[in-house]
Amino acid sequence: MSFTKLDQLGHKLEALEHALAILGADEATHMAVGGGEKRAEAMAALAGMHHRQATAPEIADWIEAAEGETLSEEQQTALREFRRQYTNMTCLPTEFVERQTTARMRCEQLWRDLRAKNDWAGFLPALEGVIALVREEAAMRAEALGLAPYDALMEQYDPGHRAADITPVLSELKTFLKGFVPEALAVQEERLAKTPLRPLSGVYAIERQRELGLAMMAAVGFDLTHGSLSVSHHPFCGGVPSDVRITTRYKTTEFLSSLMGVLHETGHAMYEQNLPKQWSHWPLGKARGMAMHESQSLFVEKQLGRNPAFWDWALPLVEQHLGESWSKADILPHVHLVKPGLIRVDADEVTYPLHVILRFELEQDLVSGKLNAVDLPEAWDAKMRDYLGLSTIDTPQDGPMQDVHWPGGAFGYFPSYTLGAMMAAQQWAALEKQHPAVNDDVAKGRFDAVTDWRRQNIWSQASRFSTPEIMERATGEKLNAAYFTSHLKERYGA
Amino acid sequence: MSFTKLDQLGHKLEALEHALAILGADEATHMAVGGGEKRAEAMAALAGMHHRQATAPEIADWIEAAEGETLSEEQQTALREFRRQYTNMTCLPTEFVERQTTARMRCEQLWRDLRAKNDWAGFLPALEGVIALVREEAAMRAEALGLAPYDALMEQYDPGHRAADITPVLSELKTFLKGFVPEALAVQEERLAKTPLRPLSGVYAIERQRELGLAMMAAVGFDLTHGSLSVSHHPFCGGVPSDVRITTRYKTTEFLSSLMGVLHETGHAMYEQNLPKQWSHWPLGKARGMAMHESQSLFVEKQLGRNPAFWDWALPLVEQHLGESWSKADILPHVHLVKPGLIRVDADEVTYPLHVILRFELEQDLVSGKLNAVDLPEAWDAKMRDYLGLSTIDTPQDGPMQDVHWPGGAFGYFPSYTLGAMMAAQQWAALEKQHPAVNDDVAKGRFDAVTDWRRQNIWSQASRFSTPEIMERATGEKLNAAYFTSHLKERYGA
Repeated sequence: MSFTKLDQLGHKLEALEHALAILGADEATHMAVGGGEKRAEAMAALAGMHHRQATAPEIADWIEAAEGETLSEEQQTALREFRRQYTNMTCLPTEFVERQTTARMRCEQLWRDLRAKNDWAGFLPALEGVIALVREEAAMRAEALGLAPYDALMEQYDPGHRAADITPVLSELKTFLKGFVPEALAVQEERLAKTPLRPLSGVYAIERQRELGLAMMAAVGFDLTHGSLSVSHHPFCGGVPSDVRITTRYKTTEFLSSLMGVLHETGHAMYEQNLPKQWSHWPLGKARGMAMHESQSLFVEKQLGRNPAFWDWALPLVEQHLGESWSKADILPHVHLVKPGLIRVDADEVTYPLHVILRFELEQDLVSGKLNAVDLPEAWDAKMRDYLGLSTIDTPQDGPMQDVHWPGGAFGYFPSYTLGAMMAAQQWAALEKQHPAVNDDVAKGRFDAVTDWRRQNIWSQASRFSTPEIMERATGEKLNAAYFTSHLKERYGA
Repeated sequence: MSFTKLDQLGHKLEALEHALAILGADEATHMAVGGGEKRAEAMAALAGMHHRQATAPEIADWIEAAEGETLSEEQQTALREFRRQYTNMTCLPTEFVERQTTARMRCEQLWRDLRAKNDWAGFLPALEGVIALVREEAAMRAEALGLAPYDALMEQYDPGHRAADITPVLSELKTFLKGFVPEALAVQEERLAKTPLRPLSGVYAIERQRELGLAMMAAVGFDLTHGSLSVSHHPFCGGVPSDVRITTRYKTTEFLSSLMGVLHETGHAMYEQNLPKQWSHWPLGKARGMAMHESQSLFVEKQLGRNPAFWDWALPLVEQHLGESWSKADILPHVHLVKPGLIRVDADEVTYPLHVILRFELEQDLVSGKLNAVDLPEAWDAKMRDYLGLSTIDTPQDGPMQDVHWPGGAFGYFPSYTLGAMMAAQQWAALEKQHPAVNDDVAKGRFDAVTDWRRQNIWSQASRFSTPEIMERATGEKLNAAYFTSHLKERYGA
């Protein structure tokens, strides 16, 4: 039976994915500093084995034959995802992939070096090379998938989202935010004029911060028998569903950003930990995509962790671990601080979407050819001034050179961040409709209803449906910016 | 060129070995408790890929063809080790290996359960099954390698050692020890009657013990940029040469055994860290075998770490980390405590070889058929009474049920422990001949001459020669028990 062959292949691929995931997490946490070269060699060889096995020509025949077999509904759905994975992995010729990998790696290395030097001119030719290849890639993916070129790129990260559907939603959000950011800043200014920000600036031993983070992780539902918290330079969520590795970094003089980071990664981790175990070796059993994943991390960080009700419960826990007795009036102005800036990864939840929309608009034009890399600094600066009133014309390192995504060739990824933020707000609203007392629960540290809703509507669905389908089934309607704008108005508005 | 195919195969196998080594070390140190089942699945699948790739039929043709190619001397030596590995891995039919793996796993699981219950009768049938299969295995290996059956088993662990060569050496040692153990105990008793043992029983925080261990590791030559120290239930040395993972376990009330364990694993680790890097993907580049490996760990633990001169240097370091000001008269009676007991792994360096010789004698008879498992408790007890004056007739859990080796089917492995101890003493003597002032160096914490000798004579040799050949080249003579007995007489004698 051909489906059985696919099932067996799934087990082999899962083993290689397990090795790659643990080796990757280990590299950033426990590896000796001198172990990198051999680790890179080993991981490249394992990734090569994975790619060869996942793209073998006979798999096309197995999928074809399996489609004629008598399969359960579950197997049929699994088969559809096997086909999706196989198509996405094989639609580019090997020769092209190798050429593209070389160009991306060169551009990324150059970026690491030249961003620090603010050297746009030196960086431009490499970026032009990557963009030329991504245009080729988009055309080939479009052909294979029957999609528009930019949609075909997005399809890798976020199955089912189309520019035609998300553009109006993001436009609505943009229009709202251009008016709302000044309003939120005015509200904040007025409040801080009355009650100045009280610094949260004690010195807190890393071990105590770690214990606080672990206590919060466990309370919101991270399963510590199937995951752990370590330290790394850049926080991440890695590992495998049976052993999810999340990381943070600590400053003894600044506990809040580390703690919020832990909650963010906890959101990612709980999605992985709660995927259906019986499907773990099928593409069907994987998390749906980057937007859905980001909705889960932002759900825990923004909807739960920055929710004022959460701090009713959290402040005594903070006091127990850090020995500080703060009131909500002390901490919420820090938790909700709005501060427009040039750097996306440092942005608050109000201004963050404008960073993403800027990139979404520019990268569509870069892929279509309407915009060329040489014109990026001006185009970026114009939008930055329009959306946030800030200029990057003299600092390309804080403009089009600030992210690794484009040098790395990841076009079509950026929208996931803000789609995730909107999806999280819409999920929260759906949950609140079903459990109107959810904030009372949260204020008491009771997260069961929250977890049950997420398990039933998101985690258990894995890749059964496309991203927009899962959202519609979970919340009863299509993606709607109103939930996110309401959320912002309630938290930051007048 | 067929040699090139072997070379490329070596890179693929190295990547899988890297993954298996890191996944294995991670499992014992950083894995979440619930991650075991999926880890086992992944490692079994990767081990299967490794075995399939390493034993593919075409490799026989490549080796055959490569032997007709014009190769450098280095490549010829590499080829010889490719052939040795291939022969050892393919001389058993797959059907047999599967049957044996099942029997061993069942017997090991039963052993874990029944040893605790002292249930020899329940355990016996499973052990009989394993022994029946090891007799078959020895016959097949003997046929393929042109060796005697027991030699063919030893060849897996320790290439080049033959029972006919090591038996006289181990017999000489046995005769010596049967007289020397009572002598050493009498000497100790007399000394303790004069100066009773002063307990080293403070409470030392794990973090301080860890720092002390790391300081000693670094001082004796462990490269902390290519390895690390963690905690695990059973101490081990794992990982890969570019990132060696050693572990220990701590008791706050007992620092010495943990510290000696760290030195032991450091000895293993330095061998791995200093193997020739350009050969790392060839069998030639691997450590020679278990006896040589054990000689390296025992060299650091026994020849260096329990050397009185070492404590001239080490005591101030201990004081710096633990805050205790001990004299050599305080610590050496602990470092050199002799205490005959039933359990091999707890034995001191004087009595340990008798535990090994007992097993070496019994397992040869088990393999040849002269002895059957049903008669083991009596045979074990008789030797135990003869060698150490202790009886195990009522406690098989502390007799033939005490080790995992036989239930796991590892016959031919035990001699490595004591061959390693003798080899370490002989290496030390050769080093001392070349550097008569070595103890003065050690007393000052200067380990350069020691490290240089080991690098030149042992580590750089990797698998260029058989175990006895490396020893003869390094020390100028064949394995000679006199070095080890002199060492014991000097340290423990009248």
